[in-house]
Amino acid sequence: MRIAVDTLGGDNAPGEIVAGVLSAARKLPDDEFVLVGDKDGIGPDLGDAPYNVTWRHASGAIGMNEDPAGALRARPHSSVAVAAEIVRAGEADAFFSAGNTGAAVAAALLKIGRLKGCRRPAIATILPFDRPVLLLDAGATVSCRPQDLLDFAILGSVFARRYLGIGVPKVGLINIGEEPGKGNDLTKEAYELLNRSNGLRFVGNVEGRDIGRRTADVVVTDGFTGNVVLKTAEGVSRELLGMVRDALTASMMSKLAGRVLRPRLLAIRDQLDPENYGGSFLLGVHASVVIGHGNSHARGVENAVVGISNAGTGLVEESETALAAAKERATEDAV
Amino acid sequence: MRIAVDTLGGDNAPGEIVAGVLSAARKLPDDEFVLVGDKDGIGPDLGDAPYNVTWRHASGAIGMNEDPAGALRARPHSSVAVAAEIVRAGEADAFFSAGNTGAAVAAALLKIGRLKGCRRPAIATILPFDRPVLLLDAGATVSCRPQDLLDFAILGSVFARRYLGIGVPKVGLINIGEEPGKGNDLTKEAYELLNRSNGLRFVGNVEGRDIGRRTADVVVTDGFTGNVVLKTAEGVSRELLGMVRDALTASMMSKLAGRVLRPRLLAIRDQLDPENYGGSFLLGVHASVVIGHGNSHARGVENAVVGISNAGTGLVEESETALAAAKERATEDAV
Repeated sequence: MRIAVDTLGGDNAPGEIVAGVLSAARKLPDDEFVLVGDKDGIGPDLGDAPYNVTWRHASGAIGMNEDPAGALRARPHSSVAVAAEIVRAGEADAFFSAGNTGAAVAAALLKIGRLKGCRRPAIATILPFDRPVLLLDAGATVSCRPQDLLDFAILGSVFARRYLGIGVPKVGLINIGEEPGKGNDLTKEAYELLNRSNGLRFVGNVEGRDIGRRTADVVVTDGFTGNVVLKTAEGVSRELLGMVRDALTASMMSKLAGRVLRPRLLAIRDQLDPENYGGSFLLGVHASVVIGHGNSHARGVENAVVGISNAGTGLVEESETALAAAKERATEDAV
Repeated sequence: MRIAVDTLGGDNAPGEIVAGVLSAARKLPDDEFVLVGDKDGIGPDLGDAPYNVTWRHASGAIGMNEDPAGALRARPHSSVAVAAEIVRAGEADAFFSAGNTGAAVAAALLKIGRLKGCRRPAIATILPFDRPVLLLDAGATVSCRPQDLLDFAILGSVFARRYLGIGVPKVGLINIGEEPGKGNDLTKEAYELLNRSNGLRFVGNVEGRDIGRRTADVVVTDGFTGNVVLKTAEGVSRELLGMVRDALTASMMSKLAGRVLRPRLLAIRDQLDPENYGGSFLLGVHASVVIGHGNSHARGVENAVVGISNAGTGLVEESETALAAAKERATEDAV
């Protein structure tokens, strides 16, 4: 695959971004990487770059608090705009950015465009439970229609199969009760659509407390709810791990006990580390687009880029085929 | 205060419910308690009941999976219906139920009615962070209008002052970004209303990950999102504590270390125990109505009932006054 990387977006740009890509490039000799950024900034790092890494100029990143659409229009030579442009021109199959999420989504929509049969895209994030769960939408489409959630279910199923290796992923709808008929207008109607769709393994409604209970491999919801779920889970994890850490350092005895437990507790922290996946896929657009965490380090960038390569170019084609098949079945059912 | 208690709702009814009330009644000699339930079921427990506990007959509870409104109509003598009826008749100031939440909300709305100036009620739940945070609505009003969130902010401020002892509570709006202008139509409009209201200490948008960070004492959202937040927090806590528990029992050495840490880790579990508060207040109705967890035990019931007594009858009056004052200010502003 050919992957364009925005080296200017994110808190640790460009150093950590470039380092992550160079490391990935050595491990993936069959893939090609285009570093998009400022020559003065990234030039020194390119001295010992492997042969499959090239460079393209861009001037400046779109800031974390800038209005995405406005900034993209005003600065067509910003790094995320150039990365998306490289994909649009057919010179890359995918792009990665750890910068402003809204700007990456807007650049993907404006320059690369949506898949046929998909009204709105979704950000697919992996929740690092004991067995990983794919959550979408984590914030690309704040207000959804019922049909959008069906599209997300189809896109998420294809992605979970290719990326997480789950044969026929179980799909759940995030809702406020398990029984059909629960929820708001959106979830009630989406339930009907998901339940009627015969190309999915739909397991019904999933409540917040059951997301980590292996009830479903993929959970779908609107971008507002999904973003709140994701951030609540992050916040609660942080608070609880903080409480455990305080307990381990409260006295001399607990410190000694804590030392014994340290490797196992570090293993928990490692399991929850967002850098394991390094980013979230924007699904529903005509290329692989991955949005890294704002504070991505080299390891996260490397893992994200390797993930793009593993998912392969087939992800986009397979997603479009699955969406088309679902529409066809829906039309046949209606006839 | 005079408090009616549904003794038939919940997984551990009637035994644990009755035991919790009897214990509270001994501690609160100035309050009166009406146990609502089946004489044969609760009779034996009443042998040594204190003088301030009486009993009223009801036949059967509304099941956890029954349709609330339909079941209430069909069974006017069910325990939650009778408990609400006692309040309606002026024979009690409050009721508690650990049964079907929807049935308790419907009974409160149908028999007791809403506060003047409040279109829809909200369930106010305490999130047991380091410093407790009041979340509302946790599920009473699934689809909200912007004005509802302003009402919830007013009700939550009054409640946090009386119940949590916070002088002028900081109020936040759950949203998917900190900046004004973020979110869906509901949160964008609610932000404007909250920001214009001069009777509140509004601190702006609060993201899911910041709910526990002392940013706000009260966080408001629609009942769908609030219910998902609450249950996600519960699920993530359960999973994480499970991982820590596994780490403590993985080997002989970790078991020994775990024994040293046990008191401090139990303290964490205790802090998160929902029975500390024992239930959630339904705000916006003309009486104190508290909904207990389905699996409430005696301690939770006791704490819930003591909480009702502590909040006092003034809660309802003060809430109505605060709502009226807010409408008056809004009208003056508009003139």
